This record gives sequence, C-alpha cells and structure tokens, in this order.
Amino acid sequence: MMTREQLINRIKVQRSFLCVGLDSDPTLIPSKFHQYKNPVLEFNKAIIEITAPFCVAYKPNTAFYERNGWQGWQTLQETVNHIPEGYLKILDAKRGDIGNTSNQYAAAFWDAIQADALTVAPYMGRDSVEPYLGREGKWAVVLALTSNQGANDFQMLKLDNGDLLFEQVVKSAIQWGSDDNLMFVVGATRGDLFATMRKLAPRHFFLVPGVGAQGGSLADVASHAITADCGLLVNASRSIIYAGSGDSFEKDVESACVELQQQMELLLHQHNII
Amino acid sequence: MMTREQLINRIKVQRSFLCVGLDSDPTLIPSKFHQYKNPVLEFNKAIIEITAPFCVAYKPNTAFYERNGWQGWQTLQETVNHIPEGYLKILDAKRGDIGNTSNQYAAAFWDAIQADALTVAPYMGRDSVEPYLGREGKWAVVLALTSNQGANDFQMLKLDNGDLLFEQVVKSAIQWGSDDNLMFVVGATRGDLFATMRKLAPRHFFLVPGVGAQGGSLADVASHAITADCGLLVNASRSIIYAGSGDSFEKDVESACVELQQQMELLLHQHNII
Repeated sequence: MMTREQLINRIKVQRSFLCVGLDSDPTLIPSKFHQYKNPVLEFNKAIIEITAPFCVAYKPNTAFYERNGWQGWQTLQETVNHIPEGYLKILDAKRGDIGNTSNQYAAAFWDAIQADALTVAPYMGRDSVEPYLGREGKWAVVLALTSNQGANDFQMLKLDNGDLLFEQVVKSAIQWGSDDNLMFVVGATRGDLFATMRKLAPRHFFLVPGVGAQGGSLADVASHAITADCGLLVNASRSIIYAGSGDSFEKDVESACVELQQQMELLLHQHNII
Repeated sequence: MMTREQLINRIKVQRSFLCVGLDSDPTLIPSKFHQYKNPVLEFNKAIIEITAPFCVAYKPNTAFYERNGWQGWQTLQETVNHIPEGYLKILDAKRGDIGNTSNQYAAAFWDAIQADALTVAPYMGRDSVEPYLGREGKWAVVLALTSNQGANDFQMLKLDNGDLLFEQVVKSAIQWGSDDNLMFVVGATRGDLFATMRKLAPRHFFLVPGVGAQGGSLADVASHAITADCGLLVNASRSIIYAGSGDSFEKDVESACVELQQQMELLLHQHNII
C-alpha cells in the first residue's frame, strides 16, 4: 500500500516521478538472459535493480505475462514480489466487469498479487470501479484519455451536453472516489487536452503513458498538468527497458532512465515542488 | 476454433443456445468438493459433465481464477483443457489495450489458453480490438450494452449525433470485423433495447448474460433478437452452477440446465430454426 502522502514524499525524495513499465516481451529482451531458466524474471530483476534509484513506481502490464499462461502469472507474481518497498506497484491490467466480478479482481490484485494500484476500464460504469476503492493506500487508475490512435473512436466523441466522452468519464469517476484512491490514465500524446484534464481533476494523480516509444513530450505534459504535489506519474516502458541489448545493456538502460529523471528533477525544481 | 457455420450447426444439434458461465467461487461451491486438492477444478469438471448435453458453450470468467494468482490461472487452463471438442470456449476477460499490448493478449488467449472467443472492452477503440480478428474460428466479443446498473453511466449517454454511446460502439465495431469473427455482449436485462441492437447488427451473434441471477427474461430476449441462424448465446452462471449444494447437487444443476434448454428448444422450434 502507498497513501497519497507517501507517494508525494517518495517523489520528493527520489526527485523523480518516473514509472518504469515492465512490458517484458521474451522475444525482445537481450539474448544474455536466455541462459536462465526464467529469462523474463531475470530481465525484470536486472531492470528493477538498474532503475530503482531513478523512479518511484513500476508497472507490469499483465498481457506480457498472460501470453505465457499460468507460468507467466507466476513470473508476474515473482516480479511484483521483487519490487522493493517504497515503490508504487501498478498492475496495468485494464480490468472492468460487473460488481460481483470486480470484487474477485480486487481480491486478485490487492490480496493475491499484492499490487498497490490497478488500471481500470470505465465502460461498465460505477459498480465496475467501486470495488477497488475500499482499501487505504490502494488505487484504481481509471482510463480517461489513452495514448493510442483508437482513443479517437469513442473517448473523443461529443455528447449532447457538449462534453467529450472522456470528460464525462472523469466527471463521473471523481464522484465515486477521491484523490486518495483514484488516479486517471492520460496519454502523453494528448498534450493539448492535458489542461482540460487538469481543470476537471485539479488534485488527482495522472498516470501518463506514451512518453518515449509513443512520441509524447515530458515538457508538454508537465507544462499543462503538474501540480503543487506533482500530480504526475510518467511511465516509460520500451524506451527504457529495451534501451540496450549487448554488453552495454546495464549502462544503456541506466542512461535512458537518468535522462528522464534529470528532466523530471528540473521540472520539480522549476515548479517549486522540491 | 469454431466457425460461424459450426456454431450454428452445433446449436441445431444440441437444440440449445445455452452458454454455461464458470464463475466458480471457492467460497460458494458445494462442501464435498473441498475434499479434493483442487476443489474448483473438480467442481468445474463436474459442472461440465452434467451440463454438456444441454449447452453449446462454456464461459469461464478470468476474475474468479485470478483471485488465486498463478495457481488460479493453472486451474483456468486445466478447466479449458477439460471442455470437450464441439463447445465454444469463451474466455470472459474483458481485455482492452493498445495494439502492441492486445497482440500479447491475443497470444495469451488464442495460443496459450486456446480459447475460441474473448470478451473485449471497446473504450480504447479500433486498435484495441483488431488484434483479435485475424484468425479463422476465433471471436472477439465486444461489450456493447452490459447487464449491470453501471451500464447507464456511459453506455447509455446520448451523443451529439443522436445515438447512444453503445449504438456508436456497435456501428464502429461492425466496420472492424464481420459476423464471422465478431459478436456483441448485450445484457438480458435490456429487453427493450434488444430490438435496437438487432437492427444495428442483423446477423451478428449476441452473447447475452443476465438471465437467471440478474433477472433477465429468455422469452423477452428471443422475441427481440433471435434470427434465422439463432444469433444468440444466452449465458447463465450462478443460476446453474450453484443450483444445488447437498446430495442433490448433480440433480439440481441438471434440472436448472434442462429447464433453460427446454425453453430454448421451444424457441428454436417456434422460429423454425430446428
């Protein structure tokens, strides 16, 4: 578990609001890890060790583990177990189901996996989100505006009251929880809409994917949406974990991570957060 | 895999369009199964054996397995392995992510688990659904109008073009796939909107949860949405699998199943499908 206060303190101590995405694809990890019995697990351990000084959160995406069936889930569990104390453990699973079923997912992610935060799809509404909101230091991270092309298909549709759908999702979801147990996913590729998002949810943390491989800009994101408490967790996955492959793997991953952390430290200074 | 033609034939042979939902909660299964090393697996095997003469599909909901972590996924895999040939294996997982990630989920559900169909949440749009559409006899089952109270929060919102959101979801999704690889989830509690759904998607199969424990009526559903090819898979979970608990467990489950199958057989006759 990690409360809002603990998360803000951690950002100040680490001088970073970086989340490292553990989208570990066995076909993309450096060949040297294939000497181990469980290449993905050893890769993840190495990534965690290299990046820990520069980040505040880790975000395994369940898809990359489920592709290996139950053995993949075992790797996911062992990876989460390996994340040190003091880092927010976000499971990027985008779950969403009726209340009776979401209670089971809450048991899966809070009790079995022992995650601190879970990404949640909002399409099924209130009773699909509420089961995640009842525990101190646990977070539902609701999809608002995602970083992909397909976000335009529905999230950007205009409603008859003048709002775009993602705005209505945010307006509704902030009624269900608080800034102590609810965050929103906002893709870094949505620079111009970050100001809108921040107006709708002035104190909520945003989990921001799409910096790096997907092309979003950290400076743009911060200029629109950083708050007095930071209020941002910016995720990078592929641009960090696949930064190197050969003998310089450790050094390349560290460099990619340090570069983002230094930009973040500067932004935290500029906004008088540290 | 199961093609549209195979599915329609199967419905005619079984005289049923029943899907049995394997939402197997270890705290709700009859006590006699707790003598086994894996109570949920033995329960599922018993349910499959009792219900197979009366249904055409099985639908495990991943949440009920994930609550037990990787051991739960192992049970899920063994359950799917135990479903006989000739039954549609639907994984109710409601996945939805960017294209790169959905490719991993396709690998998880088509290759690792070997499911035939997967429920998919539409909020992230086209590239979150397309990765499931490329394989013969495999189905993406897109959430359109769900059976829960929360469906009113977003699915029923009116857009500025006059459509409700779920109508736009259906209009978009039928552009992405065909009635050979795409179905829609429509909750049985939405009786009055079934006619709307059928107009939007005249030939697509609908997967209909919400009969039984959630209160939907089979006759209502059929009157609005049955087609010349049937076009319906009606799911019942709790009302079948928890129909009995003591010595009469097998008999009670069979009775619950037979009752639905007989209603379905009558409807298939009335609509000249068999």
